[in-house]
Amino acid sequence: MDYRMASRMDGAQGSIIRELLKLAAEPGMISFGGGAPEPASFPTERFAKIAENAIKNKAKATLGYGISEGYPPLVASLKAYLTKTEHLDFSDNELLILSGGQQCADLVAKLFVNEGDRVLVENPSFVGCMNAFRSYGARLQGIPLESDGVNLEALEAAFATEKPSFFYMISTFQNPSGYTTSHEKRKAIYQLAKQYNVMVFEDNPYGELRYEGAWIPSVKSMDQDGRVLYSGSFSKTLAPGMRVGYLVYNKALHTKCKIAKQGVDVHSSTLYQMMCHAMLKDGYEAHVASLLPRYKAKANVMSAALEKHMHKDVRWQRPQGGFFIMAWLPEGMDSLPFVNEAVKRRVITVPGSAFTVDPSRPNNGIRLNFSLPSAEQIEEGIVILGQLSHEMLG
Amino acid sequence: MDYRMASRMDGAQGSIIRELLKLAAEPGMISFGGGAPEPASFPTERFAKIAENAIKNKAKATLGYGISEGYPPLVASLKAYLTKTEHLDFSDNELLILSGGQQCADLVAKLFVNEGDRVLVENPSFVGCMNAFRSYGARLQGIPLESDGVNLEALEAAFATEKPSFFYMISTFQNPSGYTTSHEKRKAIYQLAKQYNVMVFEDNPYGELRYEGAWIPSVKSMDQDGRVLYSGSFSKTLAPGMRVGYLVYNKALHTKCKIAKQGVDVHSSTLYQMMCHAMLKDGYEAHVASLLPRYKAKANVMSAALEKHMHKDVRWQRPQGGFFIMAWLPEGMDSLPFVNEAVKRRVITVPGSAFTVDPSRPNNGIRLNFSLPSAEQIEEGIVILGQLSHEMLG
Repeated sequence: MDYRMASRMDGAQGSIIRELLKLAAEPGMISFGGGAPEPASFPTERFAKIAENAIKNKAKATLGYGISEGYPPLVASLKAYLTKTEHLDFSDNELLILSGGQQCADLVAKLFVNEGDRVLVENPSFVGCMNAFRSYGARLQGIPLESDGVNLEALEAAFATEKPSFFYMISTFQNPSGYTTSHEKRKAIYQLAKQYNVMVFEDNPYGELRYEGAWIPSVKSMDQDGRVLYSGSFSKTLAPGMRVGYLVYNKALHTKCKIAKQGVDVHSSTLYQMMCHAMLKDGYEAHVASLLPRYKAKANVMSAALEKHMHKDVRWQRPQGGFFIMAWLPEGMDSLPFVNEAVKRRVITVPGSAFTVDPSRPNNGIRLNFSLPSAEQIEEGIVILGQLSHEMLG
Repeated sequence: MDYRMASRMDGAQGSIIRELLKLAAEPGMISFGGGAPEPASFPTERFAKIAENAIKNKAKATLGYGISEGYPPLVASLKAYLTKTEHLDFSDNELLILSGGQQCADLVAKLFVNEGDRVLVENPSFVGCMNAFRSYGARLQGIPLESDGVNLEALEAAFATEKPSFFYMISTFQNPSGYTTSHEKRKAIYQLAKQYNVMVFEDNPYGELRYEGAWIPSVKSMDQDGRVLYSGSFSKTLAPGMRVGYLVYNKALHTKCKIAKQGVDVHSSTLYQMMCHAMLKDGYEAHVASLLPRYKAKANVMSAALEKHMHKDVRWQRPQGGFFIMAWLPEGMDSLPFVNEAVKRRVITVPGSAFTVDPSRPNNGIRLNFSLPSAEQIEEGIVILGQLSHEMLG
């Protein structure tokens, strides 16, 4: 039959990254295309014990229906953790456990985006969340991202003229750029949002993975009037396959958020929530601390290799945390031919255009992930990319 | 701040059942309000072993990112199972693993319902799915449900005048009524859908739990032109907390469905998918077979107690499967005062109005679940409800 699809899905796109990652499974490929933690870092012994024990001894709680708000002990321990680490205030705010950061984006769009509404995003930004916003009919507008956060003049102009549903930002170690919004810009963004009465959706899946530099308060921690939504995830610090994330918002929104969650999948996996809770009670902070030297070492290997092998006209910033370095070809160049040629040489990277509001326009960025490949693969892959940069830039 | 919510959520409602179930946790309560399998039936030893083994020995597959289509071995074993048991044809169709039956309803609405579109449902129908449809702006219209399926004249009239996005039906052991659509009506529904070019969304979470009577082919098994979407779930046969369900649809829809799933939560829990796969490979059919005498015995206890204790003007049908009996007060009476008084006497039931398109209108149904309470609780609770029926009906 001729299907009559909902128009909200017209703009929905698949993830080019997930397609690239299918290539990454081929033998001999070096992949800088991913965005996941190292499987060797998963706390598997601990998880196996928790799972076995929970299923055997708490079958009803583990395998029966859970509540939509989230596993209550995890809700409590996570609030305590975020109060301590991010200075969030749970006298004003509530927290909902969701199935990963992706569901946070989906639910926020479902709750706040009418079809045709404007949504502002950093340009570039995380393609998964942009796709979630698009799938509710959002018209995205990108605000140029600088190495210390978005361009404030462009943000203010968009606030003033566009009446956006919200401004979406990844404040720390952004995906794809690796950039962190400075403390000054965070304060300015919150003030502008207040002045123009716009909501901010602050996503922070990488903030805990800081191995250098000083911690910066989140925009949510500055929130005095409930205009900031804040999401986080255990996907980067524990394991992505658990699909456990969380959304923090003003209490006034709790009923609507709960109803929305109930309607999409009733509740998230209780077993994985139990694992997150057990870790938060004992061992989570030590586990995160144990990740930092791993990723710092890899970031340093990649930075040194880029320094040594890349053509001098390729720019990048040494990361202080997170999973990514964005390498920039000279202004005006499109990175797609570079990325395609690199795949032929068996190195996978992601073109910057994949992370922009209009992926058909050329973009000079190349996203490089350093969390998944080994130090040896990083060395080897960057040599190949460096050689290619010299061939292409002469 | 004053929040500007998306209008699609205006009609979204919380589940009265989930609120009632909070009461059910109070000591001394007898609950006929639930709709879940007996926790004692969960295959916990088996699951504990699978979980421990998968996390320890297949950490990357279990805890790393999975693919949006579902865990490939489960997709294969489930196709084989549905080919055998439901005669579905996977040369024409594809299958997507989703997070429970609820996500099937959410995704179908997201893909096919434009705001303001008409969606037809059996009246009464499952409130969780109706809420999912409402949350995308669907205008629901109920088609009166008879004990052998919907009234065909009413269905045809609605098909002819309403151009609905789809007709949603629970073909076997329907929730809340316990009714099964007859083979003749299934054929007629498919023919009408073809004649008026309407899609059918057939939900079948209870069909495997038949302990009496002959199996009836699904509407999906009659589908020749891809107009039937079919969803199922492991929530009733294995454990609801796993949140593993599946959607079957014509291959032409696969790309859109995958993209939609990717956008809502990337993928469903791989660990629980592994458990479903391991069961399907070995033990699932025996496990389901072992459930049948359990639930049949309880259904018989409830039927006998209703027969013995209820006022003669209360009607109900002896079930051949599933989890529910719907008891009907005399036509024109509202069951809400009955349900409220029963709660005071510490017996929880759900009023029929909760399952209708307009819950503010009186309805004479009372949904009684027999899968969760013990035989003793069923006896004791029905005595109380019977006493109340005599007080109310004289």
